Amino acid sequence: MSKNRDTFFSEEDFLNFLDGFFEQREGLVLGRGDDCAIIKAENEMLISSDLFLEGFHFDMKYFSPYAIGYKALAVNISDILAMGGIPIGFTMCLMINKRVANTTFFKDFFSGMASLCKEYNLYLAGGDISFSNFLGIDITILGKKGKRCLYRKRANVGDLIFITGDIGLSRAGLYAFKMGIQDRFKIATKSHLMPKISYNESRAVTKNPFVNSLMDVSDGVLKDIVRLVPEGMGANLKIDNSMLHPEVISMAEILGEEPSVFAAKGGEDYVLMGTIKPDGIRELNKDISGFKVIGEVTDDGKFLLNGRKIQGGFDHFRYTETY
Amino acid sequence: MSKNRDTFFSEEDFLNFLDGFFEQREGLVLGRGDDCAIIKAENEMLISSDLFLEGFHFDMKYFSPYAIGYKALAVNISDILAMGGIPIGFTMCLMINKRVANTTFFKDFFSGMASLCKEYNLYLAGGDISFSNFLGIDITILGKKGKRCLYRKRANVGDLIFITGDIGLSRAGLYAFKMGIQDRFKIATKSHLMPKISYNESRAVTKNPFVNSLMDVSDGVLKDIVRLVPEGMGANLKIDNSMLHPEVISMAEILGEEPSVFAAKGGEDYVLMGTIKPDGIRELNKDISGFKVIGEVTDDGKFLLNGRKIQGGFDHFRYTETY
Repeated sequence: MSKNRDTFFSEEDFLNFLDGFFEQREGLVLGRGDDCAIIKAENEMLISSDLFLEGFHFDMKYFSPYAIGYKALAVNISDILAMGGIPIGFTMCLMINKRVANTTFFKDFFSGMASLCKEYNLYLAGGDISFSNFLGIDITILGKKGKRCLYRKRANVGDLIFITGDIGLSRAGLYAFKMGIQDRFKIATKSHLMPKISYNESRAVTKNPFVNSLMDVSDGVLKDIVRLVPEGMGANLKIDNSMLHPEVISMAEILGEEPSVFAAKGGEDYVLMGTIKPDGIRELNKDISGFKVIGEVTDDGKFLLNGRKIQGGFDHFRYTETY
Repeated sequence: MSKNRDTFFSEEDFLNFLDGFFEQREGLVLGRGDDCAIIKAENEMLISSDLFLEGFHFDMKYFSPYAIGYKALAVNISDILAMGGIPIGFTMCLMINKRVANTTFFKDFFSGMASLCKEYNLYLAGGDISFSNFLGIDITILGKKGKRCLYRKRANVGDLIFITGDIGLSRAGLYAFKMGIQDRFKIATKSHLMPKISYNESRAVTKNPFVNSLMDVSDGVLKDIVRLVPEGMGANLKIDNSMLHPEVISMAEILGEEPSVFAAKGGEDYVLMGTIKPDGIRELNKDISGFKVIGEVTDDGKFLLNGRKIQGGFDHFRYTETY
């Protein structure tokens, strides 16, 4: 390799470069380089896949290469945590266009991803690369079960609905970027680019026996709450400004939206949302600093936010948000 | 659902449609619908991911929706078979553009994929969907170990190199489509659209104790042979017309290429290629109808085809084929 070269000469060259960022770890029996990777497995494993596509999930105007690598993996880690599991490794397929096919880009991209691998002890178990019209990352993450496996749709009427952190922050950050006022929204924009990983929150939730369902908020509370509560039940959400981050309130005011509605529509915060019998609240509140009760599970099949009916949220087939 | 509607109204609508094609099977503890799927696992598992992208891996001018669904999964199944493993299930991420977001397309697409699920008893363990600029499929396949796990780079000098079927057929089919003469290349075009699954071949190979390495031919023998033999060793390939399908020879003649070179450059046949001690040849030849010995592992680090030096093959970073 010449010292100053920035382009990859071949697929092999690219893969050798990649190898420098991802360490061999316990649990990975055979890494990249054969037709399959081989992993150690337990009795049952968690598995989930998420796409992260330029122009659809991220905008290269705002995202640094480091943040793209970070978030592509972070959203997948979140799916394992959302079931109370422990992430252990992943496969990665990369769709690369000419614009990013250089070492400058991928040094930062892989560094962002590798920072999470180091923190959570994850291995990379192979994948695929192809040229494409745009940059895209598809990760399949593997996890083992935590203390307990927590599912959606296991709540009872009267359970409280909680979240483990700030909602609406990522959405506020996205709007701040779009409006060119990111300097006034430092926490929100950070949250959009590199969402907080709810690892400790997931551990705290699984050790609380009163929690009976869990998911992560990826498409916004308004949409996700309908997926959380069992068929036939509803939710009465009560969110006031005291539960919201100041930057979320600021952005809602700029847009002339009600802050609670703005926040409840916001996707990509990757906080955990779950249901808990009221008896367990005190302990969870002690264990999780961002813990907030935002409502109650009801028996009437209706979904209300501050008394008003919820009509929908973000849908990947519509590109529209409705409320 | 109205009877004649052809569009999907929402992501949920799409996923409900999808559910009709993929059965719950043994080994899938929790299917689609939560943050993760849960699968039964063994002590060690095989895992592999492959992209299948419109314009890069398939052309919608030639590929029916059925063939796209079929081949996207087939190429992944091949990776498990290439290690002597048994495929058990997969996750699927779909990148969908407006052009294909209709039930007509996806009925055929899912049917092509489901035909393989039925034949090989595979489950779908969730995934993701997103709109995109083009149609793309990314599958991560899981497998369990077969009788033996067979790796690359385990050959010894003097081992024979074998393939389990026809090479160059898929390439001949692609050229036939490009030239508009597909009617004269029925086997080759079929092979390009819906490659044969080497399931029985993989079973036969793993039970033969003389086989010591294995892979599938996805980028062509010329490129893949370098990945098969151990560092420092070489290969002396001898391929003559008697080993080639008549349609491969016809296409090479049309193009003015040497048939053996044309065939050895051809990717996407997904036959298995391996090395075997000479003592095991007779039995494998009996067990595998398409069995052919195409060369020998040498000690000099050189790669020769019919006495001429091999310079390379298909590279995903170059788009060029060299010989």
